[in-house]
Amino acid sequence: MKKTSSLDALITAFERLPGVGPKTAQRYVMHLLQYDKAAAEQLSRALEEAAAHIGNCLRCNTFTEQSICTTCSDEHRDPRLLAVIETPADQAALESTLAYQGYYYVLMGRISPLDGVTPNTLKLERFLARATEPGVEEVILATNFTIEGQTTAHMMATLLKPYPIKVTRLARGIPFGGELEYVDLPTLAQSLRQRRNT
Amino acid sequence: MKKTSSLDALITAFERLPGVGPKTAQRYVMHLLQYDKAAAEQLSRALEEAAAHIGNCLRCNTFTEQSICTTCSDEHRDPRLLAVIETPADQAALESTLAYQGYYYVLMGRISPLDGVTPNTLKLERFLARATEPGVEEVILATNFTIEGQTTAHMMATLLKPYPIKVTRLARGIPFGGELEYVDLPTLAQSLRQRRNT
Repeated sequence: MKKTSSLDALITAFERLPGVGPKTAQRYVMHLLQYDKAAAEQLSRALEEAAAHIGNCLRCNTFTEQSICTTCSDEHRDPRLLAVIETPADQAALESTLAYQGYYYVLMGRISPLDGVTPNTLKLERFLARATEPGVEEVILATNFTIEGQTTAHMMATLLKPYPIKVTRLARGIPFGGELEYVDLPTLAQSLRQRRNT
Repeated sequence: MKKTSSLDALITAFERLPGVGPKTAQRYVMHLLQYDKAAAEQLSRALEEAAAHIGNCLRCNTFTEQSICTTCSDEHRDPRLLAVIETPADQAALESTLAYQGYYYVLMGRISPLDGVTPNTLKLERFLARATEPGVEEVILATNFTIEGQTTAHMMATLLKPYPIKVTRLARGIPFGGELEYVDLPTLAQSLRQRRNT
């Protein structure tokens, strides 16, 4: 792309987004400047606004504009339960089941050495401090069932071992509506080993 | 993602980029707010700057901060040649060959009814006005060899038919270093039909 200085600067700025290389950055810039300048201005304002006002909740670490987020401020929740998830999106997924009434802790990531995310980067000691507060009886490790999520869960379980807290993991098994024939083998094996009385 | 109002606004703003859905928008926002607030501020400023200062060259339609871009202002170029390309990136590719000394016209897109880009959206009449200026002897249709690019080239050739201007298209054939065995069939057939004397 023939670059003028502010074009150049804009392409470079987009390249700092995860998974965005020069081609995608050029495509975004082309679209915004050629077809949707209003969107460029909207995005600029939204970024400025968000960078200035959004921080992390002092209790659960999720994004919030207050010092304590609305979920942590909600006194009708069950203080004995603490679910640990990777991202705010995971929290939203659990919330939408309406099956959980406890509090959350949002890691904002997962241990992933390839991406440079270590237990230190994740500030697991902050999680540990929250999980061992008086009143917490069960910590539900609700990280994803990916290799990184499993590693993170394992690490948190190890950290919690010295404490008299029940540590659980979300159940794995055949999904709702699942047909045995099409379920992948590890999941099917797991569902057999962990079969329950009706 | 648990949304606060400015989070919400930022995700929505990212979703206006081409090919960006809710998941990607959330990933961008997560990255910027959690790991790289400096990048958020940089992107915000770059967008504001670019939206305010970058417009289209009055002659060739490319992005520029002046009213006439540096290429169109360059009087050492050959005024008899005009190459039409789809994007500034295509112009950069042609320039880097050092094999072309004429002027350019940048369509900033291609005819693509599925994306809502019609001859009207592309403002082909502006191209026609530029191509039929006195002094232009040859118009090189250098749009891509995709279906959309071919359609656009065909449309421009039709528009230029009434005028005494030579209209050419970039040559197709076996690429530099290409081995016949691995060249796709349409390209090989084309290279046979358009064989040249050595």
